Parts: sequence; structure tokens; C-alpha cells
Amino acid sequence: MPKYVFDFTEGNKDLRDLLGGKGANLAEMTNLGLPVPPGFTITTEACRSYLADGVIPAEEIATHLAKLEAAMGKRLGDPEDPLLVSVRSGAKFSMPGMMETVLNIGLNDASVRGLAGQSGNERFAWDSYRRLIQMFGKTVLDIDGEKFDEALEELKAGREDLALDAADFRRLVGTYKEIVRTEKGREFPDDPREQMELAVRAVFDSWNAPRAVLYRRQERIPADLGTAVNVVAMVFGNLGMDSGTGVAFTRDPASGQRGIYGDYLQNAQGEDVVAGIRNTIPLQRLEEIDATSYRQLLDIMARLEGHYRDLCDIEFTIERGKLWMLQTRVGKRTAAAAFRIAVQLVDEGLIDLDEAVIRCTGDQLAQLMFPRFADGADNTLLTKGMNASPGAAVGQAVFSSARAVELAAQGVEVILVRRETNPDDLSGMIAAKGVLTSRGGKTSHAAVVARGMGKTCVCGAEDIVVDAKALRFTAGDTVVEEGEVISIDGTSGAVYLGAVPVVASPVVEYFEGAPPADELVSAVHRIMTHADGGRRLAVRANADTAEDAARARRFGAQGIGLCRTEHMFLGDRRQLVEDLILAETPAERQSALDALEPLQKADFIGLFEAMSGLPVTIRLIDPPLHEFLPDLVDLSVKVATGAGTDKDDRLLTAVKRLHEQNPMLGLRGVRLGLVIPGLFAMQVRAIAQAARQSVKARAEIMIPLVGAVQELESVREEALKILAEVGVHALIGTMIEVPRAALTAGQIAEAAQFFSFGTNDLTQMTWGFSRDDVEASFFGKYLDLGIFGVSPFESLDRDGVGRLMRIAVEEGRAARPDLKLGICGEHGGDPESVRFCHEIGLDYVSCSPFRVPVARLEAGRAALSRAGSDTR
Amino acid sequence: MPKYVFDFTEGNKDLRDLLGGKGANLAEMTNLGLPVPPGFTITTEACRSYLADGVIPAEEIATHLAKLEAAMGKRLGDPEDPLLVSVRSGAKFSMPGMMETVLNIGLNDASVRGLAGQSGNERFAWDSYRRLIQMFGKTVLDIDGEKFDEALEELKAGREDLALDAADFRRLVGTYKEIVRTEKGREFPDDPREQMELAVRAVFDSWNAPRAVLYRRQERIPADLGTAVNVVAMVFGNLGMDSGTGVAFTRDPASGQRGIYGDYLQNAQGEDVVAGIRNTIPLQRLEEIDATSYRQLLDIMARLEGHYRDLCDIEFTIERGKLWMLQTRVGKRTAAAAFRIAVQLVDEGLIDLDEAVIRCTGDQLAQLMFPRFADGADNTLLTKGMNASPGAAVGQAVFSSARAVELAAQGVEVILVRRETNPDDLSGMIAAKGVLTSRGGKTSHAAVVARGMGKTCVCGAEDIVVDAKALRFTAGDTVVEEGEVISIDGTSGAVYLGAVPVVASPVVEYFEGAPPADELVSAVHRIMTHADGGRRLAVRANADTAEDAARARRFGAQGIGLCRTEHMFLGDRRQLVEDLILAETPAERQSALDALEPLQKADFIGLFEAMSGLPVTIRLIDPPLHEFLPDLVDLSVKVATGAGTDKDDRLLTAVKRLHEQNPMLGLRGVRLGLVIPGLFAMQVRAIAQAARQSVKARAEIMIPLVGAVQELESVREEALKILAEVGVHALIGTMIEVPRAALTAGQIAEAAQFFSFGTNDLTQMTWGFSRDDVEASFFGKYLDLGIFGVSPFESLDRDGVGRLMRIAVEEGRAARPDLKLGICGEHGGDPESVRFCHEIGLDYVSCSPFRVPVARLEAGRAALSRAGSDTR
Repeated sequence: MPKYVFDFTEGNKDLRDLLGGKGANLAEMTNLGLPVPPGFTITTEACRSYLADGVIPAEEIATHLAKLEAAMGKRLGDPEDPLLVSVRSGAKFSMPGMMETVLNIGLNDASVRGLAGQSGNERFAWDSYRRLIQMFGKTVLDIDGEKFDEALEELKAGREDLALDAADFRRLVGTYKEIVRTEKGREFPDDPREQMELAVRAVFDSWNAPRAVLYRRQERIPADLGTAVNVVAMVFGNLGMDSGTGVAFTRDPASGQRGIYGDYLQNAQGEDVVAGIRNTIPLQRLEEIDATSYRQLLDIMARLEGHYRDLCDIEFTIERGKLWMLQTRVGKRTAAAAFRIAVQLVDEGLIDLDEAVIRCTGDQLAQLMFPRFADGADNTLLTKGMNASPGAAVGQAVFSSARAVELAAQGVEVILVRRETNPDDLSGMIAAKGVLTSRGGKTSHAAVVARGMGKTCVCGAEDIVVDAKALRFTAGDTVVEEGEVISIDGTSGAVYLGAVPVVASPVVEYFEGAPPADELVSAVHRIMTHADGGRRLAVRANADTAEDAARARRFGAQGIGLCRTEHMFLGDRRQLVEDLILAETPAERQSALDALEPLQKADFIGLFEAMSGLPVTIRLIDPPLHEFLPDLVDLSVKVATGAGTDKDDRLLTAVKRLHEQNPMLGLRGVRLGLVIPGLFAMQVRAIAQAARQSVKARAEIMIPLVGAVQELESVREEALKILAEVGVHALIGTMIEVPRAALTAGQIAEAAQFFSFGTNDLTQMTWGFSRDDVEASFFGKYLDLGIFGVSPFESLDRDGVGRLMRIAVEEGRAARPDLKLGICGEHGGDPESVRFCHEIGLDYVSCSPFRVPVARLEAGRAALSRAGSDTR
Repeated sequence: MPKYVFDFTEGNKDLRDLLGGKGANLAEMTNLGLPVPPGFTITTEACRSYLADGVIPAEEIATHLAKLEAAMGKRLGDPEDPLLVSVRSGAKFSMPGMMETVLNIGLNDASVRGLAGQSGNERFAWDSYRRLIQMFGKTVLDIDGEKFDEALEELKAGREDLALDAADFRRLVGTYKEIVRTEKGREFPDDPREQMELAVRAVFDSWNAPRAVLYRRQERIPADLGTAVNVVAMVFGNLGMDSGTGVAFTRDPASGQRGIYGDYLQNAQGEDVVAGIRNTIPLQRLEEIDATSYRQLLDIMARLEGHYRDLCDIEFTIERGKLWMLQTRVGKRTAAAAFRIAVQLVDEGLIDLDEAVIRCTGDQLAQLMFPRFADGADNTLLTKGMNASPGAAVGQAVFSSARAVELAAQGVEVILVRRETNPDDLSGMIAAKGVLTSRGGKTSHAAVVARGMGKTCVCGAEDIVVDAKALRFTAGDTVVEEGEVISIDGTSGAVYLGAVPVVASPVVEYFEGAPPADELVSAVHRIMTHADGGRRLAVRANADTAEDAARARRFGAQGIGLCRTEHMFLGDRRQLVEDLILAETPAERQSALDALEPLQKADFIGLFEAMSGLPVTIRLIDPPLHEFLPDLVDLSVKVATGAGTDKDDRLLTAVKRLHEQNPMLGLRGVRLGLVIPGLFAMQVRAIAQAARQSVKARAEIMIPLVGAVQELESVREEALKILAEVGVHALIGTMIEVPRAALTAGQIAEAAQFFSFGTNDLTQMTWGFSRDDVEASFFGKYLDLGIFGVSPFESLDRDGVGRLMRIAVEEGRAARPDLKLGICGEHGGDPESVRFCHEIGLDYVSCSPFRVPVARLEAGRAALSRAGSDTR
């Protein structure tokens, strides 16, 4: 039988798998000689075994409990001088929905008197006893916590908790026991060993509580890890004003500023801080109350930071002037703090720059790049909802999509305010600067679709009442009518009345070329410089215009990974494209193509100049042609109602001819190039001539939607002929965006000099769903059900899409060792996906210009990560 | 250096890879001691080497030529007694577009006189010489053959060829040389060795002729096989009336009847038979002309059949009473002949029943199952077009799709007649019994779409003139007006005036339960019985009604592999489905579901009874809900023009809400089941209750469109609960029809008891094209370009879709060894695909009832094939 129970003296921080995060860190602190109450950890392995057969390692626990009793000189349940313990869960990853803590185990009607006697504080003893029954009832016996809260409130009758006396609490114990009896038909167990065993079982069982299961599914945490249980001798912060409890950070986790940061509450236990029953005081004021403990705490925090080489987050208790450490862990922090602290620790010699880069995530960098509301603006805070999609948006409130579209068309900036959104609101969401809803969580339609669009969104702002018919919403006493300006902060969830000034991100200004303005930007600068030095992946941008290309280059792009030529067919060129589509003879078609060619050429010259000396990948036209024509339904109605012109009749014929059931799976990409004579040839000629004119052009011609090598061969042959005629050189490659392309990559590589993974389409086809349709119709439900933890359009689905990519990389390279490999789907700018691209050995990622810095950082982190570093 | 040239005495029939089919069989006959003119074969390996470096093995050829000269006692180009040779290509697979034959090599202005002297026939000598120049000019020098034909016609001036004399042919030689000079600016080469070398090079080069390349691409013949060249001493069938040439089969290749079958032409060379310059005579009459040669020929044919153990197809020449064998091969035959001959050979002890089964293909069986036009009907044959899609169809000629739809709605059977079809004709093609076009080949829109639909089609009937405006077509003198009845035979391409009586296939009558009616049906019976005994794959049917199920069972189905429950939602139940979709409250929705449940239950009872004791796989509803509502465009127009009712308004709102850009990739299948509460539960309950009522029901519940195991788990959990409530057992499994399902099959198998490959959708998603859209828009072009040789919807794409299937089979079985594996896409009835399913180890295939016998046969063939048998 394995060893199922570890004394704190036996563990260390590297045993998180076995002891959980809490247990491992308690052991670490114990071994550092810090004042940790004695205790032991029952391992995750014991949990797994229990979940299989329902047996807990009772003997081993008894042995360790006996040791604990010996160390403390007290016995559990001793009516004279009882030992009390806490039972706390602690998995490898902290997990909402699991049972957390039961304090004061060991109390019963007899031992409560011993505790009173020993502590000389009868009130404290009965308070502790009622806390045990309350927590035990709620978490172990699964009784609705409200019942206990109500009984307490009734007893207090409006008084402060400090105003209650021993008799009050004794009465409360009686009430609580009655609640247990009524709710569960059993007595509160007065055997301390039974209390402990039930608590341990409850912790283990809570591993499979529905919320915990869902959370694991969403976060892709393996279901079979199990949780550990920590049994710790109780120390008391509620023994009087010389006692207390606190939480602290070794630096400011919000700003990253140096210096400790925390809260302290006198004469209280840990859960009182969370419950907010009284106001806490800043940690610094502990110096006035108990200078010795304060200095000791500072020493310990400095030691912990040095030892963990990172920001630490601690919990402590002072019992009658004696400091006890109850927990430590590496602290969570804001994005700004992450960068500042990482660089501070480098300067303090605690970590090197590699490590600093690894500790700053691309998501954090992205947060720093959003514009934000100016500090110090005095706008009324209307409410706070969920921060569903980050950014800062200002606009007139509107209450219907139609109105949003109408005003946006006039150039008015609007915020779409709805109780909740549905697929009909898509056009309104596109038209609006931001979206505010009063209903629905982070997986609601509004949230899912807004994130997909990169649109600022606050959802589930439950305090507001939206009255779409009356064109207004109310927030408390404030009424906001249509047309009134509001400001929503998708990063914090705040909603303000009026226009809050928006300030550009100083980090973006730095990327645009400004010198580092403050400590934060300097930190970003140092991190980015080191990441760039370390990364293996190149970073390119997706850009269709010279302006975007120039911006991307300033942001550090090393070329263009995707230029969508169809974007050049819009605007005032639409007429030419229409001519092309409506052409009835080869001559008419050719004349439309001839007219487009010089325009395309000029576009390409602009791109080549902006990216002079760097590669520019140009994708030949991809979408189906009817996308350039009016909508079938609109046009049918127009013609049927007699509102159409002669031209509309002709257009309708063409639209009907080109209409497809599933245009995404229709005549587009390379298929279009093979079916419409001269189309691809025109584009290739325009590229070739532009390249001849731009001295340092490095053109790469990309064929979209290839599923079979024969398609590519056909197009390639024609393209090579044109390149030879014009006398320029260009790489010819293909998108890998159809599953079959990945599955036959070995064949396709024979005819392709590069692959670029089009992971948007590849995701759609691998899963068999169209993003336009499904984000609105069932993604929210799927996120709720935990079918995926994050939309596969946001972060690459490793098991499905990723597997196809691996196949294509391996077999493509086997067929052509110098095959260039990149990605140009939106995943190219997603941190987790960039790491995956590094892992599978791509040469570059390409993303929107704004995401280029994020990709650079993540590429650096991926390259600098050592095995075992947890960089998630 | 490898041996590049083989004398006929050195080869044998098993060396087809190296010597090509023709060379290997010539060698085989030589070694059998049959009278084959001496000669040698230059190998395919020599061809490959030549194609790489342009060098032919001149020395080795010279050595073999010298041996040939010695054997014949004549020298090439000898002015006194010249040896003549033929140069003929011969690849492993015969291949249109490659150079075929040059006869009479060795003639020039000098040796023609020697030939005249030796043969004592000056006319013959000059005729042979002009033939050389003609064939050489056409095939080696690539001069338009028409030029030579025209010169010959001019010379004949209406006379028979036998009326031309030596002087005529001498003049023709002069003309032909002039043609060479004019067309190519060079002299016809008079050095016989140069003639031979140029001919050999021309054969090798023709391996890469565009038509040959295209053919290989379409037929998936490897591009690097190369062709062999046979150099054979000439023998002459044109030396007088005691000479001649013929082709023969050892049995009738049309009916399969015993006894030789062939044609003979006196005083002629082989190409004269093909050119049809005079009428041939039946081979039997050779007995009267040359009884010795005839008897010798019969002996040889019997020997060949015994040796090859199959129908043989031969070419021979008689030179002044001496029989020479020029070629043999296993002969092509009709479907009926294939079955009859195979069984005859068994009865004759030449082959065993395993071999007989292997020699009868599923395609051949399918041909025998089509209804056909009665023999002996005396309808006017209007024309013959291409046999684009088999079957026999009779109906009134109509000239527009609108009219076809209109008449079909009135129950009139129509044939749609068009110059060519386009996507607008889809509805008309669906409405018609058959399609006839005057333009376009087997890859035209009409042909591709009709084959996809299994609709009878004759295309490219170029002799008819379609005048759609005047509502008529003409065929020669006959005018066919709209409404007149025509009959089209998609198997032969024939088009008749009037209604030709259609007779059911006796083979189908046998499968329906009739006893074998004739030798053919008896043969089919024996083949099928043995195939059933040998096969490992089970065969199930796709059926949605009790009637279909019963029929499928008669045809040999061993269960239902796919019942599409959505088909049960049509007809008069549409109203209930509409109620379900329009439901605004959970109560309304539940009441619609409650109304559907007993109907579904009754359907399932019917199926379970029809398949009593056999497994019945029921797929829960798959298509998106808007498929049950009116079309968006139609409804929009109706409402906009004021023609709509109040209900139409409500419907339009629902249709708009449910509208999807790409419904195939939208809210359907398991997604629908997870999003619409109660829908799947209703279906599962109906299945469970039906199964409880049918004692021998074996229900299998199949979840469509699963892409992630979590989806399946969610549905499975609910289904298991319902099954337990009702108290019946059923397997729960999933379709594998989304690429991701195959890629994560190991995970999905944890929650699935069976997989059924839905290869229709899997093909669509793996290639990224929607069948509805692409068959019409670019499949014809793709077939023309050789991007695929056969539509991947007809025959499984092994490299792409097939690879996903292999992954799913391997990883699914690894995760769950007793996983049941089947296929229910239309490929389940395609012969080549059935073989693939056998190879990858599926347990069953499921196909439409009519294809069940085909699948049974192919499953048998696959199991009985021994390594190396060529069963394609």
C-alpha cells in the first residue's frame, strides 16, 4: 500500500501532484522553519483510491493524528484541554465547487467547556463551537447555509457580532443543532473522530460535485487527479484583541508596486474576513497593534518571496501575540503587475530574463493594449456587470438592432443595450461599438458572439432594467433614454453614464514607436526585447492594405502572412467585379479582368513597398462570387414587388445561378480559379508585374482551398508560365484549410513551396460547423455543458484540428524538407495557439497587426520555456 | 545495366509489369509453341530510363534485331528480300491516347521492289509501303491523319480498295511523301533502322501524351509505369485471297454463350478490320475458305482458354494459308456473359467457385438489375448518344425544367430534353424519369448530376437538334414535339420514339423470391450463394419504412444500418413539426413532442417487426429544423407582395430566426438534440417503447454529427436513463461523419458501442464541398481535368476520407475492442468502397435495399480474393 498520509515535515512544494497546492506549500513553509501549525496531508492518491472503493486510510490517519496530539500535548475531544483541527481541501489546481474548509473539529458539548477553561474565554469557546456546527452542517451535511445565517441574524437582531456574549452563542449552538436535526433527521455527531472522518470523506466526495466536474471539463483538467485533504491543528485569531487574522501580498498585485499589501482583522477567524462582517484595516497598521508580529511577518514575507522567487500571497493568524502562517502560494496579479514584478525580480537578482518572459503572458500583454477609460473621470457608475469581452466603448444607447444599424450608417457611435441578444441582433452587434445586456453570463449569446467579433461587451448587468419598447433602461434611480451616451468597460464590467474619456494604451503607443513612458512600458520593452531574441517562430501579419502593412511592420511583423485579395475587389471596384460575373462572352469576361489587373497591380506595389525586403504572401481570390452581388432575398423581394430595375432582373438571374445551399462548401478558392478562365491568371500577372516594379519585393503566391494536389498542380503550371513571362521569381504555395489537404499533405507538398494553415476554415470543416451560424445558435450552450472550455475559434483545438496540423507538418516536411510552414488563421494571434505552433515546428505565425506583439511574446515564451515550467 | 530487351522466348505472361500486357502474352504464346511471328520486347524499364535521359538501349536492340534477322533469314531494308517489322506499344494497362502501332517498318524505295519480287505481288508491296508512310506519318511524325485519308479517297474516286492496282499505290506513295515534306519540312526517312528507332522513341514519348496523362490521372494509374515496345516480324494478311486477318473470342462476349465468336476479312491487314473498309465475315465461314487453318485456330483457341482459364480474345493473320497468332488477352465481356462464363468454367473444371465469384463484379451485377427495354420492340431508333447513367426511362418529351416539374406534379412521366443542362435544371431533373441532352460528354453537368441522382441519362446525342423555344427536337427527319413519348436507354445510349415496353430484370425477380428462370439467373444464384458463404462483412440496408425494410430483407439484408427518423416527420406530420418549431413556451413544445411520440413509436414497431431478430439502427433526427419550414425566398416574396396570411408572417419570423448561412454546418444532429430540450428524449422513448412491444427487436440508437465525446456523453446519459425507465436494452453509438469524430475516435469510443461511418457528410467535410452545390458547379470540370477519376461521392476517396476511416477504426477498436463498426453512407453500396470497408476491417456495410445484392457480392469477392488477384 502506498503512503497515503504525509506529515508537513515530510513534504515539499514540488509534491503538488500528491499533496495538492495547499499541502505542498504548508510542508515547504514547515521545512523553512516558519511558524506553521503542525498537521498532515492525506494525499490525492488516497482520494483516488477512496473514490474507487469508498475506503479511507483510517489507520494511517489515526497514527498521524496521534503524532499530532503528542506534538501539541492535547487530545482531540479531550474535555479538559481539547485539540482542535481544521480539515481543508487542496487539489493541484484550485477548483470552484469543491468543499473547502471545516474549522474547529474536535468540539462537542464536553470539550467546549475544556476549551473555555483553557482559553479563559467562554464566549470564544461557544462561538467556535457554533462555527463548527455551521460549517460542518453546510459543507459536510449539505444543509442550506441560509438556515444558519438566518438564525444568526435573528439572534444578533441588528447588533454587531462583538456585542454577542457567551450565552448568545450557547443558545445559537442549540438552534444550530436543531437545524441539523430537522434538515437531516440526525444528530450533529459529537464524536470528534467521526467529525473528522466525515469531513475527510466530504472533501473527497466533493471532487465529483457537479460544479467541480463542469469546471474541470471546461478547463480541461483531468478528471482523475483527485484532491488532497489537510488536517491542521487549530490556532485562533478570535481569542481577543491581541489576536487576529489577515491576508497579504508581498507586492501590490494590482499595480505591481514594491512593498507589502494586505488586510488585517482583529479578533476574528479567516472566514470573517471573507464574509466582511467588519471592516479590515490595512496591514501596515498591524505595526501599531503588535510590532513584534508585524516585523516577524515582514521577515517571513521577504523570505518567502526570496524562496519562491515570485510574488507571494499568504494567510496568517495571530493568536495572543503569536504569529502563525496558514497558507502561502504564488499570488495572482493584474497584467500590469505581471510585467512590472517580473522585471523587478530580474533587477533584484531573483530570476533571469528568460524566466521573466515566461511569467508574462500574451493575454496579459493584450489586456495592456486595449484602450481604457481615463483615471479620475467622475462619471456616474451606473452598474457593474460581467466583463464579457474587453475594451472601452462609448456611444448612444440604442435598444434595437435596426436602430443600431440605422444610426451607425449615419456615423453615430452606439451601444446596443438589450435584455439579452439573439441571432437577430447580429447586424446590430456588428454596427455597435459595444454591447450591454442585463441577462446572461459569460456563455450567453451576447458574450460569445461579442468575443468572437472582438467587440467590447458587458453582460448580465442584473441591476439594470431594460425596457426596449419604451426605449430606455433604468439603473437604480437613473433612467437612460435612447440617444443618451453611456460608456462600458468590457475589461472591468463597469457601466458609466456619459462619455468617459478613453485613453490610448501607452503600451500601444510604445509599439507605434514612442519611447517607453513609465516603469510599466519599460518593463514591457525589456520583456519584448528578450522574447524577440529568444523566439524561433517568426511573426507576420495579416494585412490587405499598405497602411495595415506599415502598421504591422511598426508592431514588429516580419512580413505579411496573408493578404486577402478579394478585399481589393470591394468599394468602387465592385462594378468591375459585377461586370466580370455578368459577362456573357469570354471577351466580356476578359475585358472585366483587364480592367481589374492594373488596380490589383497598384495594390500589390503598395504592399511590397511597405514590406520591402520582407516576404508578402498573397492569397488568390477565395470567396464565392455571389458575395459580390446583392442578397438573394432582398433582390427577390425588390423584383417581386416591382421596385427593381432592368439591371436588377439581370442581377437576380445571376444571383440565382450562383446561389448555393452552403456557400462555404461551394464554388470558391482554387475551384473558382479552375472554373473561371483567366481569373487567377489576371491576379498572378498583377502580382508578377508589381514584383518586377518593386525592387525588394518577396512575393509568395498562395492558392486557397486546395484539397487535392491535382488542383494545385493545375494552377501552379499556369502561374509558373506567367512568372516566367514576366521574368520574376515568386514562391508558390497553398493554404491548408480543408481536412483533406492535411490528410494528403505529403502529396500536396510535392507541388507547394509553402503551407499556410488556414485554421478558421480548417476548424469549421474539421468540426463541421460554420462559425457564422453556430456561435449564435449553440456555442453558449456548448460552453455551459463543458463540451468545450473555450471556443475552438478562439484557441486551437489540439485534438482535432491540431492533429491534422501535425500530420500535415510531418508529412509535408518528409516530402519536401525545405517546405515553409506558417499559420494565417486568427489563431495565429492567440497565445495558447502560438505555443502549439511552436511545438509542432511551424516557421511562422501570422495574425492581425494588433496581435503581432502578443504573438511575438508568446513565441518567445514558448521558445524559452524549459520542460516542466508551467507557463499557462 | 538491367536487361532492357527480351526475346519472346524469354518472357511469360506473369511479366506484365516489365513487358506490358501484349509483350507478356506474345511471350506466353511463343512458349506454348503457338505460331507467333518472332520478335522481341523493349521493356517498360527501358521506357522509364528513356524518359529520364532520352537514351534508348540501341545496342541491345541491335543485338536482338540481328537475332531476329537470323531467325527469319532476312535483313531489314534488304533490297532483295527485306525483313519487315511492326512496332507496337504495350503498357501494363491499355491506355487511350498512346501511340499504338506502326506496321511494315523496313520499306523504302529499294526494298519495296525486293518485297514485290519475293511476294510476286507488286500491288501488295506498294500498298504495304504506302501503309507504312501513312501510319508513320500519323503516329510518329504527328501529321494530321486526314491528309493521308483524303489523298487515298481522291485516288479511289469512289472505287473499292481492291480495285486499286500497283501503279495507283505507287502514285499514292509519292503523294504521301509529299505530304510528309510539306507538313514536316523533312523527308520520310528511308533508312529502316532510323524508321525503327524513331518509332520506338515515339511509342515511349506517347506515354506522356496529354490524353494518356489525363487518362492515367482519371484512372489513378501510376504515372511512372512506362510502356513496353514490341518489335515483331511482319506477316501479311493482304497477300491475296488465301490470306486474311481476323479477331475472335473463345466464347460469345456479349451473351456468354459457349462456342467461338469472331470476324474474318480476306486479303487484308489488321487495321482494315477496324477501319471497316469491307464487311467482315463470321469466323465460322473460314472453315469453307481454309479448313486447315480454321481447325488449327480452333485448337489454339481451346488451348488458350484452357491455359488462361478464361475467355480469350485473339488477333490472328493467315499468310498464304499459314496461321499466325498476333495477340491474345483475357477478353472483355458484358455483365451477363461474365456470370455465365464464370459458372461455365467452374462446370468445366477450369476454375473453382472462389475464382468465379472474384470474376463477377458488383458493377456487373448492378447492370443486370436495371430494368431494360424489351427485346423485339420495333420502335424507331431516333439516335444514339452517350450512355451517361444507366436504366430505361419512358416519358413525354419536355423542354424546360418548369414544365417537367409542372407535369410531374400532375403524375405525368416526362423525359427532360435539353441541349445541355445547368444548375437551374436541377428541379426538372429531379422531376423527370430521365434526361436527354444533345451536348456534352460523360462529365457534363447532366451526366454528373444524373449519375449522382441515379437517374437514367443519355447525353451528347449530337444528331438531334433541340429547339427549346419551339418545344421540339428533331432527329434526322423525325420531329418530336413536346408531349410525344420517347424512350431512352441509359445503359446503351439509344433513344427511341414512342414507349418501348420495359421489362423488369429477371435477376431482380430472383432476388425478390422467384426461382432462377434461366442460365443467367442460375449463374447469378450460384455466384451469390458462394459469395454469401465466403464473406466476412455483413450487409445491412438503409430503410426508413417497414416496406423498405421487408424488401431489403428479401434482398438479403441482415438488418437496418440506417433509419432516418426525420423522414417520419414529413407528410401529414409536418404540422406537428411546425408546431414544435413555432412553440413559444416549454409547454407548447412539449405538447408537440407528445403528439409526435406515438407516431414515431408506431413507425419503429413496423421496422422492428419487419427486421425481427435482426439489428435495427435508428438515427435520431439530423437535419436542421428549417428544412421542415417553407423556403425563405419564397416566403419573403409572398409576404412582401401581400400574398401572405397571418400565419405566413409568423412562419417568416421563424424561418428568419432559423436561417443559416451554411445549414449543413449549422444547428443539426446532436447539436439540435442538446439545444432543444425533450427532442431526443421523445425519440429515445418512442424507440424504447416500440422495442418493448416487439419481442425480437434489436434496437441500436445512433447519434448523428458527433464531433466530440462530450456531446455523445451528454446525450447518452439521458438516453440510458430513459431506457432504464422503460426497461429495455439498446446499443448506443454514433455516426462518424465529422472529420473531428474520426480524429478523436479513441475518445469517442469510450462512450459509443458502435460507430457507423456517414461517408456522405464525411466526404463533404473532408473535401470541404457540399454535394448539392458542387456536382452542378464544378464536378464536370474536375473530372475533365483529372482532379479525380470518379466523383468521391460515388466511390470512397481512400487517401482523404479513407484515411480518416482507418484512423477511426484503429483508434476506436484500441479504446473498445468490441466496438461494432459499419458504414451507412451511399458508399456502402459501391463495389470499390465495399472492398475498402472489408480491407479496413468494418463489421458491416449498409446501403439502399436495391444495392444490397451488389454489396453482398463485393463483400464476398473481397473476402475470397487472394493476394495478387486482380479483381478490379
